[in-house]
Amino acid sequence: MNAYQPRTDDMQFVLSRVLNAPAQLQALPAFAEVDPELMQQVLDEAGKFVGEVIAPLNRDGDEIGAQWRDGAVTMPPGFKDAYQSFWQSGWPALAASTEDGGQGLPSVLEAMLYEMLSAANHGWTMAPGLLHGAYECIKHHASDELKALYLEKVATGEWLATMCLTEPHAGSDLGLARTKAVPLPDGRYAVSGTKIFISGGEHDLSDNIVHLVLARLPDAPPGPKGLSLFLVPKFYPDGTRSRVHCDRIEEKMGLHGSPTCVMRFDEAVCQIVGEPGKGLSAMFVMMNAARLHVALQGIGLLDAAWQKADAYAQERRQMRAPGKGKSAAEADFIAEHPAMRRILDTQRAWVDAGRVLAYRTALELDLIKHSPDANTQAAAQRWCALVTPVMKSVFTHQAFHGGSDCLQVFGGHGYVREWGIEQIVRDARVAMIYEGTNEIQAIDLLVRKVLTDGGQGMNALMDTLGADLVPTDPAHTKANTQAHTQALKRMQSLRTLTAQIVHTAPQDAALAFRVADDYLRAVALVLMDWAWLRIEAGLSADTPNALARWTTPAQALRHWVLPEFDMRCAIIGQQCAAAAASALVAA
Amino acid sequence: MNAYQPRTDDMQFVLSRVLNAPAQLQALPAFAEVDPELMQQVLDEAGKFVGEVIAPLNRDGDEIGAQWRDGAVTMPPGFKDAYQSFWQSGWPALAASTEDGGQGLPSVLEAMLYEMLSAANHGWTMAPGLLHGAYECIKHHASDELKALYLEKVATGEWLATMCLTEPHAGSDLGLARTKAVPLPDGRYAVSGTKIFISGGEHDLSDNIVHLVLARLPDAPPGPKGLSLFLVPKFYPDGTRSRVHCDRIEEKMGLHGSPTCVMRFDEAVCQIVGEPGKGLSAMFVMMNAARLHVALQGIGLLDAAWQKADAYAQERRQMRAPGKGKSAAEADFIAEHPAMRRILDTQRAWVDAGRVLAYRTALELDLIKHSPDANTQAAAQRWCALVTPVMKSVFTHQAFHGGSDCLQVFGGHGYVREWGIEQIVRDARVAMIYEGTNEIQAIDLLVRKVLTDGGQGMNALMDTLGADLVPTDPAHTKANTQAHTQALKRMQSLRTLTAQIVHTAPQDAALAFRVADDYLRAVALVLMDWAWLRIEAGLSADTPNALARWTTPAQALRHWVLPEFDMRCAIIGQQCAAAAASALVAA
Repeated sequence: MNAYQPRTDDMQFVLSRVLNAPAQLQALPAFAEVDPELMQQVLDEAGKFVGEVIAPLNRDGDEIGAQWRDGAVTMPPGFKDAYQSFWQSGWPALAASTEDGGQGLPSVLEAMLYEMLSAANHGWTMAPGLLHGAYECIKHHASDELKALYLEKVATGEWLATMCLTEPHAGSDLGLARTKAVPLPDGRYAVSGTKIFISGGEHDLSDNIVHLVLARLPDAPPGPKGLSLFLVPKFYPDGTRSRVHCDRIEEKMGLHGSPTCVMRFDEAVCQIVGEPGKGLSAMFVMMNAARLHVALQGIGLLDAAWQKADAYAQERRQMRAPGKGKSAAEADFIAEHPAMRRILDTQRAWVDAGRVLAYRTALELDLIKHSPDANTQAAAQRWCALVTPVMKSVFTHQAFHGGSDCLQVFGGHGYVREWGIEQIVRDARVAMIYEGTNEIQAIDLLVRKVLTDGGQGMNALMDTLGADLVPTDPAHTKANTQAHTQALKRMQSLRTLTAQIVHTAPQDAALAFRVADDYLRAVALVLMDWAWLRIEAGLSADTPNALARWTTPAQALRHWVLPEFDMRCAIIGQQCAAAAASALVAA
Repeated sequence: MNAYQPRTDDMQFVLSRVLNAPAQLQALPAFAEVDPELMQQVLDEAGKFVGEVIAPLNRDGDEIGAQWRDGAVTMPPGFKDAYQSFWQSGWPALAASTEDGGQGLPSVLEAMLYEMLSAANHGWTMAPGLLHGAYECIKHHASDELKALYLEKVATGEWLATMCLTEPHAGSDLGLARTKAVPLPDGRYAVSGTKIFISGGEHDLSDNIVHLVLARLPDAPPGPKGLSLFLVPKFYPDGTRSRVHCDRIEEKMGLHGSPTCVMRFDEAVCQIVGEPGKGLSAMFVMMNAARLHVALQGIGLLDAAWQKADAYAQERRQMRAPGKGKSAAEADFIAEHPAMRRILDTQRAWVDAGRVLAYRTALELDLIKHSPDANTQAAAQRWCALVTPVMKSVFTHQAFHGGSDCLQVFGGHGYVREWGIEQIVRDARVAMIYEGTNEIQAIDLLVRKVLTDGGQGMNALMDTLGADLVPTDPAHTKANTQAHTQALKRMQSLRTLTAQIVHTAPQDAALAFRVADDYLRAVALVLMDWAWLRIEAGLSADTPNALARWTTPAQALRHWVLPEFDMRCAIIGQQCAAAAASALVAA
């Protein structure tokens, strides 16, 4: 089994040549000193750390897994040492402010780091994966007293953190949460209740664990507006243990390197974070960043699956490939068979475009935070609001389904543990569920974002994308010009489709919910199309060898992936027509 | 966790009302005494046995699994007793000839039995799943001496059997096999070599195991034509042990209840089955039946996944569903959310149509064997040759991908073991690989069957299907007439597409290989469409409650599944056009 190796050259190409990110970032006052060389250096160091320290632990993470005993969780071999080395090297603090003990680097570098970590070892990465959200949450909502105690510890990752949201009867619907918080005379609170699916609720990676817990005050109304946020550490600053217990960990399909804990809070003394009743909004302030991170897990895992399948297909021979002369060997390489080529090239098309879109989204997050220009900020907000749910959904979907396609390249060997490909498929499956199921992402996009402004934001996004696609370069070939025309046509179809849904939705309350998944896929395909035209625009004619590495997946995208767009339009169009016809009959 | 329960009422509806199978079978001399009541009785008894004896063992099969130690394999708790009861009750012998100790019943009943068994416990079912093929192979190819020793034991299932094909370096490409068979002076042979991925190569279910082994005689040519077939029992008739060893079993993604063995033959003394050099053809005589069984595994597993998801969605509430008035409950049932309804109804559309197509294929297998009419036989051969690879591919695909959709209905609970849904997804994955990978099925269909006769067989199949679809019933509604028109239009598109590929293929040797998967999907969608129109034709107007159970998935098929047809046509059309254009440039 060959472990994942970060391809920082490909990542760097997308960052610099496709997105021109270093120049954009350096133009911001906050990153004036972050020059391209520094970014390159950070990326290279990150790749080295991930490849040498984190990737080799992945298999034990799956086979041995996290082990629960008497309320304590022992992590798989090597996990603790790797984590200690990770935080002491400053990796969790990459994008945290220097004033909080962080390194003050752009979010896009953090995004690239987490893509590599997830690809190398999804289970291990779950633990630090929640740090950034907890850091921002404490920074923006906690009292000065709490900040003094916890902010730097969480910013640097010396202490790990959890998000305690889900309860046994309340999965996606947090408004149903029943965990109680009772005020104590000294201004603190006592929290009681059971939370489930708590990633890293208990472990031996760090000296302390900081739990952010959603609970309901005694006089709180029912529903999401009655929830407040509380901070419960495993150990208080004086070293005493809090009344929070890990009752068990789940047996899961995969992700065995990450303990998924049932946490019981038994009148655990704690402090409130932010105002009463504002718990959900405090927690959701980081939603776009968290969803982007999950999308990056998908991109990373798909890259890891592709790497394995590609290596296998290039070294193993099976049967004759069509159109090849008889060679001395008794069979041709798997990679030479058209059905296998199609799988490999298609997954690469998703990975490369995924990077363009994910890094661009991370850049937009940097712009939201640091741009002095209000218009830039507004455009960045729009990008993140619309693109993030699409990314989360399609790249976690692709990691599982495309990962399964990569498994297929191995034939029967893919189904056994030996090559590590089936682990990727099992690990990847969960990302379609957590951080808002993929169906919830689709509803978020269409119902909460597109319908609420009558499609204006989506049309503005199409304007932004379309403006990038004017083929002004005289070197454009005929095929490329045609691809531009096709892309602009799809954007136009999406505008028409948006208008049609906006127009018909008032006549059928369930319509938008029925077609939300199709709409999200249609948007995703427009984004993929755009991303690949940007990649092609970034290629230079003087590197002919490198060209095939990029033009092959571009072709796969156009042959095998983009035809789905018309199908999605047809499904949505048919639903809109049926809804309009029903309304007419009823009227 | 609720275990799978066979729905023999639904199965019976398809068999009798949709396919009119009992009457068709009774018209054959071989089944003159098989009346509808007997078929119903067998089906009910099978359902009872599967639900009560086999289904409850499924979870231990996964969690404890088959255990290897010092060359012996211990099966999971209860597996052996269940198997002994299974064969002693005559179930393996259902469709075997009465002269061989079988019950002489139609293959379609056996098919239905195996659908239920696979749904209930895929791992357990692997062991008897190979019996039928071994029985037919011995019956048609072995010497009288071998038959006297082994035929009845295998027919009744008293002894289990294996197929030893794959070797470490030869997966799909059996022509690469290197296992050697050296003739002995007494007319017997000594076989040496290692075979991998041998399901049930070793276990404690039955007193003896009969291995059918592909090997190469010393003077044999390279490639598939050099392979002969040998029978190596675990124990010889005199009770001595043969020199065949189970070196280890694989750690797999799922299917832990079935030991996947590495079998070492160490000059194992054996006898030849059939003629030298005819090993592959002896083994592949049962290919259609074996592939149909794998398709039935897919249908069964998808039904099991649907049952679990449907039950969960009807008992658990999450969030408000659109278009519903506020009820007293704090949230609506998961089944009321459009995205979840879509998943559930779509999977049911696949299961129901899958039954129509699979039972019809099993009927055609009965006609091939027993019909006195040459035209009927030829039509049945055509149906099986063309429909079987489609069924194997799409229903194993759907069991995994649709099973994953069913997992999604559970949210985070789907990813943990508790509800048993993730086991189905893991177990189902292997069926996309074995018995010829799904990509090989697609090549078999398009390259080996459709192109070789210029599309005539496929067009004849379309004639057969189309002849069923003349809406002569005056009770046909407008919507139903429209559905008929659409179906006939798709059949016409498929004819056009077939002609286009036939015409263009000579200009590009790889073309058919590139579009084989799309072509298979297009054929599958035409078959699904036909199957649902046949189901609707079987509904009677006097059962209004039962109607919704069938009309809901019919609608899901038309809304969410059939739009893929045009996409597949577009992909293929584009590839044909590009190939033709390239040929023009080259000319």
